[in-house]
Amino acid sequence: MRGAVLYAPGDVRFEERDAPKIIEPTDAIIRMSATCVCGSDLWSYRGINPVTEPAPMGHEYCGIVEEVGRAVTSIKPGRFVIGSFFASDNTCPNCRAGYQSSCQHKEFVGGAQAGRLRVPLADGTLVATPDVPADDLIPSLLTLSDVMGTGWFAADAANVKPGMTVAVVGDGAVGLLGVLSAKRMGAERIIAMSRHESRQKLAREFGATDLVTERGDEGVARIKELTKGIGADAVLECVGTQESMMQAIRSTRPGGSVGYVGVPHGVELNGEELFFAHVRLHGGPAPVRRFLPELIDLVLSGKINPGKVFDLTLSLDQVAEGYRAMDERRAIKTLLRP
Amino acid sequence: MRGAVLYAPGDVRFEERDAPKIIEPTDAIIRMSATCVCGSDLWSYRGINPVTEPAPMGHEYCGIVEEVGRAVTSIKPGRFVIGSFFASDNTCPNCRAGYQSSCQHKEFVGGAQAGRLRVPLADGTLVATPDVPADDLIPSLLTLSDVMGTGWFAADAANVKPGMTVAVVGDGAVGLLGVLSAKRMGAERIIAMSRHESRQKLAREFGATDLVTERGDEGVARIKELTKGIGADAVLECVGTQESMMQAIRSTRPGGSVGYVGVPHGVELNGEELFFAHVRLHGGPAPVRRFLPELIDLVLSGKINPGKVFDLTLSLDQVAEGYRAMDERRAIKTLLRP
Repeated sequence: MRGAVLYAPGDVRFEERDAPKIIEPTDAIIRMSATCVCGSDLWSYRGINPVTEPAPMGHEYCGIVEEVGRAVTSIKPGRFVIGSFFASDNTCPNCRAGYQSSCQHKEFVGGAQAGRLRVPLADGTLVATPDVPADDLIPSLLTLSDVMGTGWFAADAANVKPGMTVAVVGDGAVGLLGVLSAKRMGAERIIAMSRHESRQKLAREFGATDLVTERGDEGVARIKELTKGIGADAVLECVGTQESMMQAIRSTRPGGSVGYVGVPHGVELNGEELFFAHVRLHGGPAPVRRFLPELIDLVLSGKINPGKVFDLTLSLDQVAEGYRAMDERRAIKTLLRP
Repeated sequence: MRGAVLYAPGDVRFEERDAPKIIEPTDAIIRMSATCVCGSDLWSYRGINPVTEPAPMGHEYCGIVEEVGRAVTSIKPGRFVIGSFFASDNTCPNCRAGYQSSCQHKEFVGGAQAGRLRVPLADGTLVATPDVPADDLIPSLLTLSDVMGTGWFAADAANVKPGMTVAVVGDGAVGLLGVLSAKRMGAERIIAMSRHESRQKLAREFGATDLVTERGDEGVARIKELTKGIGADAVLECVGTQESMMQAIRSTRPGGSVGYVGVPHGVELNGEELFFAHVRLHGGPAPVRRFLPELIDLVLSGKINPGKVFDLTLSLDQVAEGYRAMDERRAIKTLLRP
C-alpha cells in the first residue's frame, strides 16, 4: 500500500508503506473513499512543528469497512463510515459528557493519506451511513471527519444562538465552515474576517453578511464599529496565533463567548485582560464524534454542503502537490481520491 | 465626616474627610448602615497594588438614602438600599445583557468605609428593600454589595447546576460564599480547598461535603482522586494567583467550567494547555447588580445567611484594626458599624 510520509519540512513523499492490519480486537480497517490535507498538517510541513522522523500523514478519512477485530460489534464490513481524528471508546465519562476528543482511551488516528487505514476503538469512533452514499456526497461527508466538525464545535463552544451577531477570525477551511455552522445555528449577522477574494466569496455563499479585511487591533475596531461599540455576541477563533486569539477576545462583547479551535502556537493570555474582558472562553480539539450523527443527517438531506471548501481535487499519488497548493494559499483545501 | 484613608501599605487612618454631596443629578447620598473590609482592599494594604496617593477606602455598602439628585426617579430618601461596587446605568446594552460591571458608563464606587457615601447613577445602581430591615439582617444584606454577589457570580460563571460536583479554590470570604452559592444552586458535592480550621468549619456549615487541604498539583491530584480521575464539573476560582488559577483549571473535567472571580495578579495562561484542558472559562468583576433582587429575597426570607462570614465586628473608627486582623488572617472578614 502506498501513502503520504513527511520526511522534512516541505518534503512529503507518496511511497510504499506496510498495509495496516488489525492489532487490537477493537480495530477496524477501512478502504479510503477520500482523504484530504488539513491546515494543521501544514504546521509540520512548514517546520513550525518539528519533524523528528518520517511521519505518515493525514487524519481525515471516510471509506468502506474491510475488516473488523473480533471485539467490534456495531461496525460491519461493507459499510461506509466516517470517524474522528481522535479514536474514542464513546463510553468513558468524558465521552458521555460529549468530549470524545478527551476520551480516557483516546488515540490519534494518523496516516490517513493512504489507500487503507487502521481505526482503533472502531465501535466508539466510527459512524456508518444508512447506505453507501452517492459519489458526489463524498467530499461533504469527508469534511465531517475533522474540518466541518471543528467549525461546528467553534460555533457550539461560542454558544451561537438564533439572532446573534457572530464574528469569525480566520478564513481557512475551518473558519469558512465556522461561518456555515453559525448560519445553520441561526446567527442573524455573520462577520467573516478575510482579505482573500476566493475565500470571501465562499464565506458569502456559506452565509457571511459582512466582510472585514482589517486584522489585529484595526480588525477589532471594525467589529466594534459594526456592533455599535459593543462587540460580537460570539466569536469563532480558527487560527491559533497570539494575534488571532487577542483579535477574537477583544472583538467579543462582555458576557459574549469565544469558541477557539485553532491549535494555539505560542499563545499566552494575560489573566487581568481576560478578567476585565468579561468573555467566556471555550475550545480545544473538536469532539467531532459528538456531532457526527447530526452532521451526517444534514449532509445526506442536502441541508449543508461543506464539501465546497475543497477547491482542488487530486489523486492520492499527487499528495505532494496538494500540500504545496495549500502552503502557497493557491488552494483552500485539497481533496485526495485514491 | 470621618472615613478610612490608606496612606501607605499598612497605614490606614480614620480621619476627617469632606462630606459627600450630590455632584451629578443622577447621584444619591446614603447614610451608611454598615460597611466592611474586602479581600481586595488588602492588595493595596499589602503594597501589592501601589499606593501613590492617600486613597479613601471601601466599596461595600448599604444604608439609608438621605438625598437624591433631581434626575433620580426610582430611589427615594428614607429607603434602605444596597448597591454594587461598580455604579451602572442598568440600561446600556452591556447592562441589559446582565454585565452591569461592564456598563458603558460604569464608575467605581470608592470611599465606602465612612459615615456617608455618594453613589453615582443611583437609579441603575441601587436596589431598595421593601422596608427598612431588622438590624440582625444588615450583615447579610451588606454582603450582597460585593462578596456574596461575587461568590454567586463565581458559581454562575462556572455553570453550577443541580447534582454537580463543585470544587472551590480559596477559603476567603468569597470562596466560602462560593460554597454557599453552589449549595443553593443545587450542587450535590462541594469540595472546599482549605487548610484553616475556622474556615473549614464555616465551609461545612455553608454546604461543603469534602475538604481538601493540599494545594497546587497535590490539590489537583486530590480532586482527581475524589472524582474518579475525571475532575470536578465546576470549579470556582476565588483567589487570583497563578497557582490558584492553574489549580482551578487542572481540577476541572473536560467540558467542565471554571468561574474565576479572584482579580488576577500576574496570571498568564498558556494557550496550548488551556486548549487541551477542554475547560470553559468565564469570570471577571461580578455583575452584582444582576443578582441583587434575587439575593435580597433570599436573605429577607431567611433562606441564606451569608453574613456569617463576618467573624469580627468593629465600630467604624476601629477600621485600622479591621485591616490588621484580616491581613494577619485572624479574621475572615471584618464588619464595620458607624
